[in-house]
Amino acid sequence: MLESVFTYAAPGLKFGRGASDEIGWDVQQLCRGEARRVLLVTDPGVAATGQPDRVADGIRSRGLEVVVFARSRVEPTDASLEEAIAFARDAGPFDAVVAVGGGSSIDTAKAVDLLLTNEGGLMDYVNAPVGGGRTPERPLLPLVAVPTTTGTGAESTTICVLDVLALKVKTGISHARLRPTLAVVDPDLTMTQPAMVTASAGMDILCHALESWTARWFADFDAKQPEQRVPYCGANPIADMWAEKSLSLLAGSFRRAVHDGSDAEAREQMALAATFAGLGFGNAGVHVPHACAYPIAGRVRDYRPAGYPDDEPIVPHGMAVVMTAPAAFAFLHDAAPERHRRAAELLGGTGEPLPTVLRRLMRDVGLPSGLAELGFGAGDVDDLVEGALKQQRLLATAPVDVTEDDLATVFRGSLEHW
Amino acid sequence: MLESVFTYAAPGLKFGRGASDEIGWDVQQLCRGEARRVLLVTDPGVAATGQPDRVADGIRSRGLEVVVFARSRVEPTDASLEEAIAFARDAGPFDAVVAVGGGSSIDTAKAVDLLLTNEGGLMDYVNAPVGGGRTPERPLLPLVAVPTTTGTGAESTTICVLDVLALKVKTGISHARLRPTLAVVDPDLTMTQPAMVTASAGMDILCHALESWTARWFADFDAKQPEQRVPYCGANPIADMWAEKSLSLLAGSFRRAVHDGSDAEAREQMALAATFAGLGFGNAGVHVPHACAYPIAGRVRDYRPAGYPDDEPIVPHGMAVVMTAPAAFAFLHDAAPERHRRAAELLGGTGEPLPTVLRRLMRDVGLPSGLAELGFGAGDVDDLVEGALKQQRLLATAPVDVTEDDLATVFRGSLEHW
Repeated sequence: MLESVFTYAAPGLKFGRGASDEIGWDVQQLCRGEARRVLLVTDPGVAATGQPDRVADGIRSRGLEVVVFARSRVEPTDASLEEAIAFARDAGPFDAVVAVGGGSSIDTAKAVDLLLTNEGGLMDYVNAPVGGGRTPERPLLPLVAVPTTTGTGAESTTICVLDVLALKVKTGISHARLRPTLAVVDPDLTMTQPAMVTASAGMDILCHALESWTARWFADFDAKQPEQRVPYCGANPIADMWAEKSLSLLAGSFRRAVHDGSDAEAREQMALAATFAGLGFGNAGVHVPHACAYPIAGRVRDYRPAGYPDDEPIVPHGMAVVMTAPAAFAFLHDAAPERHRRAAELLGGTGEPLPTVLRRLMRDVGLPSGLAELGFGAGDVDDLVEGALKQQRLLATAPVDVTEDDLATVFRGSLEHW
Repeated sequence: MLESVFTYAAPGLKFGRGASDEIGWDVQQLCRGEARRVLLVTDPGVAATGQPDRVADGIRSRGLEVVVFARSRVEPTDASLEEAIAFARDAGPFDAVVAVGGGSSIDTAKAVDLLLTNEGGLMDYVNAPVGGGRTPERPLLPLVAVPTTTGTGAESTTICVLDVLALKVKTGISHARLRPTLAVVDPDLTMTQPAMVTASAGMDILCHALESWTARWFADFDAKQPEQRVPYCGANPIADMWAEKSLSLLAGSFRRAVHDGSDAEAREQMALAATFAGLGFGNAGVHVPHACAYPIAGRVRDYRPAGYPDDEPIVPHGMAVVMTAPAAFAFLHDAAPERHRRAAELLGGTGEPLPTVLRRLMRDVGLPSGLAELGFGAGDVDDLVEGALKQQRLLATAPVDVTEDDLATVFRGSLEHW
């Protein structure tokens, strides 16, 4: 018997220039006026912009004490999360958590909030089989997520992504309780993103929208019992709407925001696109490009893009995701030709296939030309396929069954895009 | 200085055929597994369909005790709400409230939940100047709203509408805490709506979408302090999206659902349209047609439509709202010609002005031909205008300032639509 029900949930949202000035008031509302101490989580790069201090001062002006943890790691690991948790346990108790930064700061805040409120250790809650897959039994502290990059949608989602260092695997913690209580999206905070961060994070928006828009339809899954329902329930009428609108916004603003970071209107449209895509994929799910991104990011050798911390090699998340997108959408086309045609059109294409539209956009915003430029070769394909196959939770959201051979075709088709 | 920020909030949503079978599980999730006793609020007409009993049995099958209050009044009054509150206080304590019915049952449940959890009396919380305008200080019990009509959007909104009998005025209680925690929209529950209920409630959907789509743009209001923000913040990019999609859904299903109530696909599309419009207007607001509906419903003489309780005269809410819509949108056209053109197009029009598209739809679904058929004449216009002017909260959401003369023109243009 097939499924007939879909679910939808979202954080409260405050959107617009200046929205981040009011967070002290918002925290008090969420805490029924009883908040005294707030933990603010950010990362060193974002802290250097001065924005987290400004947010902290605004919260203090409402009579609250703020403790700042500014050592979130870009691409969190179990070790970096443990450090944040230990800091918070030591500096607590807190009444609320505020995250200011990209997906890494927001995800770090989710893990900290989880372990401040629920018993056990971090690995207990990490998705099985890597971790214990434990369900958080108690509600978390109110979490206000304030994104400073326009990409991850972490402010809307129920997942915290991390690398487990000893196992060299990227995995996550996923539960409805991890969804932030309130997303405060202030386009003014995104103006300082370097061009490559805007380009890479923007590709994350694009893939959130395209993957949720092309995900397996919710009613094509087997019927579930209520306790089996997950936040990511497949494409559905609501997620579709967010994805479509996000693609339209990207078509009008992505190139502009990358080429002129001071274009306030383009920044605002990108912030809206990121929020919309997050609200969509946060309920539908993502699939092939995201599954392929895990081993690409995890197996990086010495690639160091401009605009990111240069202390170690990194393939930024959005860049890792979009690298296989043209080949993945070529592979997935026949599952829903009309959707692929419509997506290309929403992105401003004029009749070309979706992969062509994607490659042109990647090139226009200055992304690397393919996996080869990131340091991968044909000899890495088997290894990358093995890594992608581990992301069964994501692959299950694809509109067709995805085999080892299919993934190899996708990776081989992603070495050189132009 | 003008506003730059908009806010958005929504209940969790479970949508689809069979969704109402799982409410016992949902209640336990919302109560962290600690729920024991649930109050189910419904009205006699809906109770007669057997659906509330079925929902109650489903909840009981999860080990919960359910007490049913089946005496909600269609169009609640202060007296009917007081009766429900007294019942609930007497039969409590409860861990959660479930409302099964139309907007009246859901609004009754909101008032009951408010007074089960917050001190004081009903009139303390009613909007000033009619009531005390008190702010609920404590969170309410989890409220699961299960609409059985496709119209009101009460499952998404922060307002409870009531008639204050002694003052002969329709007013409300409005606060973010009144928004249901979870909306369970099961199209199977809407199949029993009589044709006139489908037509009238459908017009409520239509006006929610059209009024939020044409409301004053959020950034055209004066800038607010955080404590001044209200759930209804004017048209904005998110509310726009819900409104547009709702209009498209109505274009494809409204006539079908009225003319063949057993058309399951049309019922599902109408349920989706109602949900979408509720999620939109629940954040943007409504204006002229809703303001005019209050005195139309309040001053009814002897109109008794098919499909509604026949113990007293009634102008159903959606019918009252749409009666002035063609004239109101003719009056408002020049404030945003492009939006009016687009709305007419989304509703399936082929170039005609929006009022023409509206009148045709009203006629096609069997609505009365105007205020005259409801028993009003030109001599009632002054009285109706006086009543509409009292709805300043709604009129402030209109895209232009609305004068006494403007309202008189709207009412006079609504006596006979064909």
